[in-house]
Amino acid sequence: MATTDSHRFDDDPAFALHRGGKLRVEGSVDVSDHEGLALAYTPGVARVCSAIADSPELVDTYTWKSSVVAVVTDGSAVLGLGDIGPQASLPVMEGKALLFRKFAGVDAVPVALDCSGVDDIVETVERMAPSFGGVNLEDISAPRCFEIERRLRDSLDIPVFHDDQHGTAIVTVAALRNAARLSGRTLGDLRVVVSGAGAAGVAVTKMLVEGGIGDIAVADSKGVIYAGRDGLTPIKAEIAEISNRSGLRGSVEAALEGADVFIGLSAGEIPESVVAGMAPDAIVFAMANPTPEIHPDVARAHAGVVATGRSDFPNQINNVLAFPGVFRGALDARASDITEAMKLAAADAIADLVREDLTADYIIPSTFDSRVVPAVAEAVADQARRDGIARA
Amino acid sequence: MATTDSHRFDDDPAFALHRGGKLRVEGSVDVSDHEGLALAYTPGVARVCSAIADSPELVDTYTWKSSVVAVVTDGSAVLGLGDIGPQASLPVMEGKALLFRKFAGVDAVPVALDCSGVDDIVETVERMAPSFGGVNLEDISAPRCFEIERRLRDSLDIPVFHDDQHGTAIVTVAALRNAARLSGRTLGDLRVVVSGAGAAGVAVTKMLVEGGIGDIAVADSKGVIYAGRDGLTPIKAEIAEISNRSGLRGSVEAALEGADVFIGLSAGEIPESVVAGMAPDAIVFAMANPTPEIHPDVARAHAGVVATGRSDFPNQINNVLAFPGVFRGALDARASDITEAMKLAAADAIADLVREDLTADYIIPSTFDSRVVPAVAEAVADQARRDGIARA
Repeated sequence: MATTDSHRFDDDPAFALHRGGKLRVEGSVDVSDHEGLALAYTPGVARVCSAIADSPELVDTYTWKSSVVAVVTDGSAVLGLGDIGPQASLPVMEGKALLFRKFAGVDAVPVALDCSGVDDIVETVERMAPSFGGVNLEDISAPRCFEIERRLRDSLDIPVFHDDQHGTAIVTVAALRNAARLSGRTLGDLRVVVSGAGAAGVAVTKMLVEGGIGDIAVADSKGVIYAGRDGLTPIKAEIAEISNRSGLRGSVEAALEGADVFIGLSAGEIPESVVAGMAPDAIVFAMANPTPEIHPDVARAHAGVVATGRSDFPNQINNVLAFPGVFRGALDARASDITEAMKLAAADAIADLVREDLTADYIIPSTFDSRVVPAVAEAVADQARRDGIARA
Repeated sequence: MATTDSHRFDDDPAFALHRGGKLRVEGSVDVSDHEGLALAYTPGVARVCSAIADSPELVDTYTWKSSVVAVVTDGSAVLGLGDIGPQASLPVMEGKALLFRKFAGVDAVPVALDCSGVDDIVETVERMAPSFGGVNLEDISAPRCFEIERRLRDSLDIPVFHDDQHGTAIVTVAALRNAARLSGRTLGDLRVVVSGAGAAGVAVTKMLVEGGIGDIAVADSKGVIYAGRDGLTPIKAEIAEISNRSGLRGSVEAALEGADVFIGLSAGEIPESVVAGMAPDAIVFAMANPTPEIHPDVARAHAGVVATGRSDFPNQINNVLAFPGVFRGALDARASDITEAMKLAAADAIADLVREDLTADYIIPSTFDSRVVPAVAEAVADQARRDGIARA
């Protein structure tokens, strides 16, 4: 059966490309003779081990620890596929590791875990941590992802970053800042409606509040979240506290009436009439993948700026603009954490790459703009040093 | 202080070589444009994930899982340095991963764990297992290493191999078979004394018993192990059951009187007079590192064959002759285990590379003999298929 399947799949270029996997571990030193072997392995390696045992900080200098990131998942929220488990998530984790290497020269290793309890995941990552310089959490479902990240950030002395939250938030904030600038506004001038209260929706909301947004309301499948709504999870209760100052209730469509910004981070659809009813110079980020909440051409007839998650329309909001540079900067600075200030610095660095060339169809740099990673890395490393959490 | 140390260490070529670590994770597919990115990552990768979710065996074909080995330690028995902890063990684990790549084209990832209880280590490796095609246990102290390996072999469907045990045993058995052949003997003709009842001593003993050794006695720091000796650990009680048929007691030196073979796997010393008192055509494997139990030139004055663990004397007994080919073969066959028969097949394959050219100074191929890994890999894969545990 496997053989038949393999033949069938090879008509699809994605399967052809994935055959054999997408990563390799290579050696960076020579062990082709006894001399090399005696330095890289026994007996020479023993002197390096002894030195690290005596002075633990030398691990940063004499091993690859400070350049290698674990890409950790339990396979519970993989792309739009949901809970497909650890093994089936591996192609995404390998892809992530591949992007770390290609975009930022970061070594990354997929670690898909066969456990799903918060305690188990936290404990497992804590036990593996001596081998890694950072942890990128990936595709772990809400609300567990919030507690897992919080506890690991507390317990580990290396950066821990849930990309589905903060990568999305960084790029969204960067794009929104430039979209606002196009019509002479700042974040403080905007009323935003976010559709989706999962990992990305929560992180975008928190970062926009941190960044001084005018007002922001968040809707889940039951409509707009407000303080006191029945059955709120702890994280949604927290969102209710910090958002929706005007006390909206009801559907996302109703909330969008007269709103300045729509940020779509769920699989829902938004009718054209709703976009037509938004404020003048409306900003629509329809980021559901692969199908945006509203077709960008339709939205563009009514909105001043439209962005999606797709590469075949203008203004692609893609995490790859953030996570490679964020980790590159955090690793370069030997940062012990990735702080809120470091994330905002990353967003500013991305936004600032679009200056005089800002247009409604160019609010965010291209995925392949080679200026992005160095700019983000430098901003993140500098902020880590200002935050007093850098060791280099 | 770190800076001063770094300068001091850089006078040592081992430190210069280790700067920045010894490994890199590279990508093996192109993601330099939108098309490549859309195949290797979203949206193309989702089709591959879905296929694996539907047909789990496809993970072998469309990810790197089946070519990547976790090199797992807790840093409790690192070289001759003892329990130096996970971070200080990293240079050895990186070295091991480097040898996997350079000798056998195997991808390997160091995983040094911050836990030491048997249950914790077993549980952690079980949770990580979906990401890996095999587990090489390394430098975990006895007796915990025995139970950890046994439990992981039972619970996981990928090969688990404690190299300090079986790598050493495979190469030792290969060398001993050829050393015996030199004087027209087989394993069944030999009475062996093993000094050291740690991971290597136990595994060598078990494999020689399996291979039909004449008689074998094992000594620890309290002397020869015999059934009923006070305070035996479970593994030493098991050794007492299967060894020492002649009921020896007392010191390793006394046991060596008239013995055919000495196998040194501890840090002890053996006086020249003791080697002189062994049987004619005695075989001395003085494998303590870096200082053999007796200088090979001194031993050679009395013994027919002398081997050590060192590259600067003849007959180097080096694990690198075994583990790269063993895993290469097990991975190639998609074996679910590494059985005793596969280990014996590996030993035979190594021994068989030395035929007419067998001499007292050439009982085992060189570390850099390029025939070794293919021969071992083929023998191991074939045996896995004969054992009915291969999926390829």
